Amino acid sequence: MSSLTPFFNPKGVAIIGASSNPNKLSFGIFSNLTQYGYQGGIYPINPNAKEILGLQCYPDVASIPGEVDLAVSVVSGGLTPDILKACGERGIRAVTIISGGFREVGEDGKSLEQRCLEIAHQYHMRLIGPNCVGTMDLHSGLNTTFIYGVPDKGGIGFISQSGAICGGIVDYVRSKHVGFSNFASLGNEADVTETDVIEYLATDPNTRVITVYAEGIQDGRRFLEVARRVSRTKPIVLLKAGKTNAGAKAVSSHTGSIAGSMAAYRAAFHQAGVIEVASVEELFDVALALDFQPRPSGNRTVIVTNSGGPAALASDSLAENGLVLGSLTPETQQAMRARLNPSAQVSNPVDMLGGAEPGDYRMALEMVLADPLVDAVVPILVPQALIKPEEVAHAVLDITRSTNKPVVTCFMGDRAVDGAREILHAGRVPMFTFPESVGRALGGLSTYQKWLERTPIDWPMSGRGLKKAVLPGLQQHLGQGSLGEKDTRPVFEAYDIPIVEGGFAKSADEAAQIAATINTAVVMKIVSPDILHKSDSGGIRLNLIGGESVRTAFKEMMEKVQSTHPEAHLEGVMIEKMAPKGVEVIVGMRRDPSFGPLLMFGLGGIYVELYTDVSFRVAPVSVDEAREMILDTKAGRLLTGFRGAAEADLDSVIDCIQKISRLSLDHPEIEEVEVNPLVVYPKGQGSVALDGRVILGGHA
Amino acid sequence: MSSLTPFFNPKGVAIIGASSNPNKLSFGIFSNLTQYGYQGGIYPINPNAKEILGLQCYPDVASIPGEVDLAVSVVSGGLTPDILKACGERGIRAVTIISGGFREVGEDGKSLEQRCLEIAHQYHMRLIGPNCVGTMDLHSGLNTTFIYGVPDKGGIGFISQSGAICGGIVDYVRSKHVGFSNFASLGNEADVTETDVIEYLATDPNTRVITVYAEGIQDGRRFLEVARRVSRTKPIVLLKAGKTNAGAKAVSSHTGSIAGSMAAYRAAFHQAGVIEVASVEELFDVALALDFQPRPSGNRTVIVTNSGGPAALASDSLAENGLVLGSLTPETQQAMRARLNPSAQVSNPVDMLGGAEPGDYRMALEMVLADPLVDAVVPILVPQALIKPEEVAHAVLDITRSTNKPVVTCFMGDRAVDGAREILHAGRVPMFTFPESVGRALGGLSTYQKWLERTPIDWPMSGRGLKKAVLPGLQQHLGQGSLGEKDTRPVFEAYDIPIVEGGFAKSADEAAQIAATINTAVVMKIVSPDILHKSDSGGIRLNLIGGESVRTAFKEMMEKVQSTHPEAHLEGVMIEKMAPKGVEVIVGMRRDPSFGPLLMFGLGGIYVELYTDVSFRVAPVSVDEAREMILDTKAGRLLTGFRGAAEADLDSVIDCIQKISRLSLDHPEIEEVEVNPLVVYPKGQGSVALDGRVILGGHA
Repeated sequence: MSSLTPFFNPKGVAIIGASSNPNKLSFGIFSNLTQYGYQGGIYPINPNAKEILGLQCYPDVASIPGEVDLAVSVVSGGLTPDILKACGERGIRAVTIISGGFREVGEDGKSLEQRCLEIAHQYHMRLIGPNCVGTMDLHSGLNTTFIYGVPDKGGIGFISQSGAICGGIVDYVRSKHVGFSNFASLGNEADVTETDVIEYLATDPNTRVITVYAEGIQDGRRFLEVARRVSRTKPIVLLKAGKTNAGAKAVSSHTGSIAGSMAAYRAAFHQAGVIEVASVEELFDVALALDFQPRPSGNRTVIVTNSGGPAALASDSLAENGLVLGSLTPETQQAMRARLNPSAQVSNPVDMLGGAEPGDYRMALEMVLADPLVDAVVPILVPQALIKPEEVAHAVLDITRSTNKPVVTCFMGDRAVDGAREILHAGRVPMFTFPESVGRALGGLSTYQKWLERTPIDWPMSGRGLKKAVLPGLQQHLGQGSLGEKDTRPVFEAYDIPIVEGGFAKSADEAAQIAATINTAVVMKIVSPDILHKSDSGGIRLNLIGGESVRTAFKEMMEKVQSTHPEAHLEGVMIEKMAPKGVEVIVGMRRDPSFGPLLMFGLGGIYVELYTDVSFRVAPVSVDEAREMILDTKAGRLLTGFRGAAEADLDSVIDCIQKISRLSLDHPEIEEVEVNPLVVYPKGQGSVALDGRVILGGHA
Repeated sequence: MSSLTPFFNPKGVAIIGASSNPNKLSFGIFSNLTQYGYQGGIYPINPNAKEILGLQCYPDVASIPGEVDLAVSVVSGGLTPDILKACGERGIRAVTIISGGFREVGEDGKSLEQRCLEIAHQYHMRLIGPNCVGTMDLHSGLNTTFIYGVPDKGGIGFISQSGAICGGIVDYVRSKHVGFSNFASLGNEADVTETDVIEYLATDPNTRVITVYAEGIQDGRRFLEVARRVSRTKPIVLLKAGKTNAGAKAVSSHTGSIAGSMAAYRAAFHQAGVIEVASVEELFDVALALDFQPRPSGNRTVIVTNSGGPAALASDSLAENGLVLGSLTPETQQAMRARLNPSAQVSNPVDMLGGAEPGDYRMALEMVLADPLVDAVVPILVPQALIKPEEVAHAVLDITRSTNKPVVTCFMGDRAVDGAREILHAGRVPMFTFPESVGRALGGLSTYQKWLERTPIDWPMSGRGLKKAVLPGLQQHLGQGSLGEKDTRPVFEAYDIPIVEGGFAKSADEAAQIAATINTAVVMKIVSPDILHKSDSGGIRLNLIGGESVRTAFKEMMEKVQSTHPEAHLEGVMIEKMAPKGVEVIVGMRRDPSFGPLLMFGLGGIYVELYTDVSFRVAPVSVDEAREMILDTKAGRLLTGFRGAAEADLDSVIDCIQKISRLSLDHPEIEEVEVNPLVVYPKGQGSVALDGRVILGGHA
């Protein structure tokens, strides 16, 4: 059994600070706890009351006679440590701290929260909160919130990092008959985090879909590891607040935590099979489809409607979400032609016109669902004068009961289709008010199906602990910040990242010697920590051939740069082979505070900035993930023979990404790596880094 | 008075085919007409009934005793021509044909529709429909639809190209208290089009915002001209179905019309100040904000909330829609600090925490609205245990009554906030259920404000009728399709489009002569209608200097190409100056069936395809519009000094766009023009077309 079970299905619950005053939140909580069928013991703790709502009060948790494994604390923050000790002594295993006054109010609150956490650890208790709304389980009947009303009983588990939002969401899902299995508001997440609850919901038999409202994920790597595993058996649908800078600022001002980079979140969601949505409405539209309907085995979708306009809007929405308006077999079309209104359109969208009756829906849906060319069906109804939406709802249910193809409906309107929604949701067919929701919902089913079809990847994969002998040398640079090309080169070489042939020369003789070894045209670059724009200062010479010209160039460069920058310390000159042209790309890494090394791939040159055509993944990545990362960008098309160009050596780019991945995992002291440009040659001819840099942490 | 007035505010209405059978649509229409306060005469026409709902029936329109200027026909399609004649004879000026069986059912229906239109023209009558749902005017009380219920009375006029969708929309806006001034379902648009109704609504004093559901606009140029004018006094908000290929196919299968290119629609909407939205929900969210609220004088927005989560989601939504989460003055913050919960956050978003009361909203909103740094305010409420949403609604209304800054609210939930919505909408403050709607609504206000601030441009502008003497020569190429570079050159020259110096040579001597005139390195290209890939066939030579080498190259090329393509007809060789390098862009035009010449600008080379970074405008364009068209693309940034590059000669590109615009308007026989590449030099140095082509219509 999970240590979180008591939060959802406890044997007995103590409400610490339960009040008999109906104007207090703690009365609301107590009242909710007693009215939704919870079967365990309920123990109000209040030394000043005899009973509340007919239940006997106890002065403290020690006096509770029966079994009790969950306490809900509504007393003021400062009393919490003593409460926790008492709970621990009583053998209570889980405490929800509703009260605020902790980390969210400043330093004093932060240390109070820390003290609470230490006590919980001492007694092996789990904490939800503080500063939260509590938990509900619609199947056990537990409700420790003060929210008005509860959702229908259903298969959606909801995890929220905002407490206050829950009241609005419960009211919304209640009205729309979106059924929940349970929900947890996590507040400050002093102990139990979203990742813990995801792990719990994975094992909860009543939860078929996990939904999350997230503001920030503190341990991104653990989230990724857990979500990656859980999403193979249950879909996780997630709404992230703080996607924009303004949103991130709003999140951090109200939670006190840093939202982190959205690029890292997106990469992690993608790698973990987490379905990210853009709005509260979409969160539950997609979850409902995943809860109620099977996944499509393909993307060919057919619309059956009594109105062309909504069908056109739904078609747009389907196309925007990767679905295809499929064809129907001639047999299906002929059979419908024979039985529908002669003016009806029997190709996709099947438009039975405004006069369509429930029997028409029944007949058309039966035929369309039986058509082998069809993977998913979207019945659409706009209420008309002579048709009852409820009757059409029943027709849809009757026909879809025996199919294994997903059916997602749109009945346009509001009050006029409420009855139909109730019928459809009771029969596990999702109904939406607007055609625009249809594509998102089916798109969610289809995205999840594709995730399940991907070969699972072990994560984290091997690659740690490979530190090579040369790299402890990095330590000498700590505090220095950015390493120049000279010091970056040995790092790349240690990881077999293919850097252009070359070497560092302190004298004209050394320069000539290196040029002789390279034995073809070379480029020379001044090495100095004080010179940023080498080419402006005469610090770069191109296309030099032969020892003598290199020797002369060395002397000239040193003199020229010394004269223009008399204050600069000149270490020497890098001598490198002039590499042939190819497609220039960038491969890089920067360390995210939550998710760790975030790998980056993009087109080189000015286009990476102009088009921000880059993609990200959290390290480590498999070969398949690295390939997908490249092909996610439009630049990737340049490497795979765009417009008849020669196919480039994709494998060598994948290899470079994986080596940087390993380098980053091996060396947490490395904050950033950039290979820029990596020049990619035609297939079989590899690629070569012309320049690169490493930035170390620990600098001022 | 507009010829459309009788459709909305008639002196008397005849319902032709009114039935006394409550199961018939025509009874529904008649019943609706009698129950929403319409004050004019109502005349049921039915030779077989004495009275319906207590009103006397007439056998035909001729027998109507009173004034009548609108007839609504519900009889079967084939009878319509006779009905129209009778209406015309009776002096009726407007007829709405609800019945179907016209163009939408095929050729026979199409000619029936044409016959009806001719009769209408003969009698100077206007027609709405056929195959439509009719019109409503909430202020005159007219309702000729069979829809259940009517919206609240308000300021939104709604024009729909789908009839069936209207029932769903009316049910939705009724439930959400979104008030309409009137609405018109236009069906097949045999006579009255969306553009006609836009013109009418511009003059309707009750309509403050015009909303449109559009599937296809047949006369795009007239739409653009009218919308451009109307949107300077009333905002037009439009939802277009058929944005994707799948959606366009669905539209064309149900209306029988071609949806046309979305690029042309987008360009026209932009040029006409039409605010395009992405969903039905957004259509009315944005319209409501425009109807109820003033426009912001800037984009600095402040959120006042009792819950951090929705504030974070709203912040994302605001940022995504071009608004900025502004700061508050220290004075405002201190004043709130003194009076709010000590844990409250008094910077933006102002978070008064879950315990906030109506008085807190009142006080905080008053202070925030008075702050000079604030342009717009978003109050957010999530229902909590101890607060009544209705009381907060009243507080919001009290405070916002005297401000001229826009206020847009989000009260999360559904049934729990219905009462608050009714109060707020009655007080002309829009309320949304989800924080994601907030940004779209304020974004709509801000977009419209920016449109009004733009200098109005006369349209169509001068530029027609400038045909130059050389161009009648184009006629000789009609039927030929694409003109090669040789025949395109004189067209460009006639319009002063700066094409690279050069000429066409039929002999080695001519070639040498042209090269001598150019007097610098030249490029030579074979001219033959039969050779597509010139460089593969030895048909291109670069960097030739001097008469002798050109002469030799001419002979070699002719021989080489003749030997590899013995069947090809070789006309000669183009001799052109080798132009210096610059930024390569494409300027072009293709003719849209609805909007006419559609101008295109994009980056040259493979990047235009890789990134589809192009922008479109309908010709003609002003200098400002052409500049904006360039700057709309990321490529435009390359021309304006991106990353320290030299600023390019933007004016010369604007000039080229305008010349192609004029060429296209002057010559309707030109289907497409492409200048590819136009090489743009640094500021002051112009640009030059290296290649181009013209495609003529009328070819097989």
